[in-house]
Amino acid sequence: MTRLEQQLSFILEIDKEKNIFRQTHLSGGGRAENDAEHAWHMATMAWLLREYANEPVDIARVMMMCLIHDIVEIDAGDTYAYDPAGLQTQQAREQAAKERIYALLPDDQRAELTALFDEFEAWSTPEARFAHVMDNLQPLLLNNSNGGADWKAHGVKAAQVRGRQGRNRLGSERLGELTESIIAANVAKGVLPEE
Amino acid sequence: MTRLEQQLSFILEIDKEKNIFRQTHLSGGGRAENDAEHAWHMATMAWLLREYANEPVDIARVMMMCLIHDIVEIDAGDTYAYDPAGLQTQQAREQAAKERIYALLPDDQRAELTALFDEFEAWSTPEARFAHVMDNLQPLLLNNSNGGADWKAHGVKAAQVRGRQGRNRLGSERLGELTESIIAANVAKGVLPEE
Repeated sequence: MTRLEQQLSFILEIDKEKNIFRQTHLSGGGRAENDAEHAWHMATMAWLLREYANEPVDIARVMMMCLIHDIVEIDAGDTYAYDPAGLQTQQAREQAAKERIYALLPDDQRAELTALFDEFEAWSTPEARFAHVMDNLQPLLLNNSNGGADWKAHGVKAAQVRGRQGRNRLGSERLGELTESIIAANVAKGVLPEE
Repeated sequence: MTRLEQQLSFILEIDKEKNIFRQTHLSGGGRAENDAEHAWHMATMAWLLREYANEPVDIARVMMMCLIHDIVEIDAGDTYAYDPAGLQTQQAREQAAKERIYALLPDDQRAELTALFDEFEAWSTPEARFAHVMDNLQPLLLNNSNGGADWKAHGVKAAQVRGRQGRNRLGSERLGELTESIIAANVAKGVLPEE
């Protein structure tokens, strides 16, 4: 295969991400959202909210992290943030997926995207930390707009949401404050029980 | 409203793009694709294929153009590339949509995104020309992977596809050549009739 054919083969493969559905529902109480839509929303948000990053970020790298961070779920499936059993096996499933899917690319791009994904997973740079704020804030905004219907459906408690959202301040003090205030408002409304 | 509230209001509004469905179907003969999925795919492709741009591009600007170019369709709806009646009114519908939706943002970002959208529409920069190659190539790849089912469903002729894809070489000689070879292969297979 030529270099371009390898790239096209990867591009066609990731089309499958549009069929990986999440627990989050679209605003207006719509259907479940899929990974491609979630990634599109995150990358667009990253550009619009880049002024709130704690440290200067290379915004193209943040956007690409947002766009690709869930590609492994084509093989590994979506793991709900509040599913302890799923979370235990998530890393091994995603590791195998990463090796298969990124190997479709030419070697230099396989290495580039694998490194970008690993950087995201490790929270190791300003870009990774800011991309994680997008990954956390995006479903929080949708769920908040729907009166917390996804939390109610799964019986999620305030402490669980605080746990997931707790590191947002590492990427953005301002957006971390925002997520905390959204959680507090939902606790006050009785949507998110403390116990 | 604070600046951040304005930004969040825009971010929630564009969630509706996930409900704007296109004529193109997902690979594997799946359901119709929506605008958010199309934009995600284009932006990811732009990064992966940036080496083929005729001129150096600011890849973050290309990606953001890809991500936002269809937001106007939240109000204006999707206009099929081979629908002459729809194409006549497309510009006016999209202009009105642009004014309403981008006005949700703070003024500086309204101006920034409006300018980015106008630049895309005008094919006036290397970034705009390369983003258009993504807009054309992405559905061509999906449709080609499905044996041209979308063309067949609409009785599309080779000349129409050549018309839509004809300016790709302005953004990328190599990818323009690719789109021409995909069209030629579909003509040879009898999928795209010359007349």
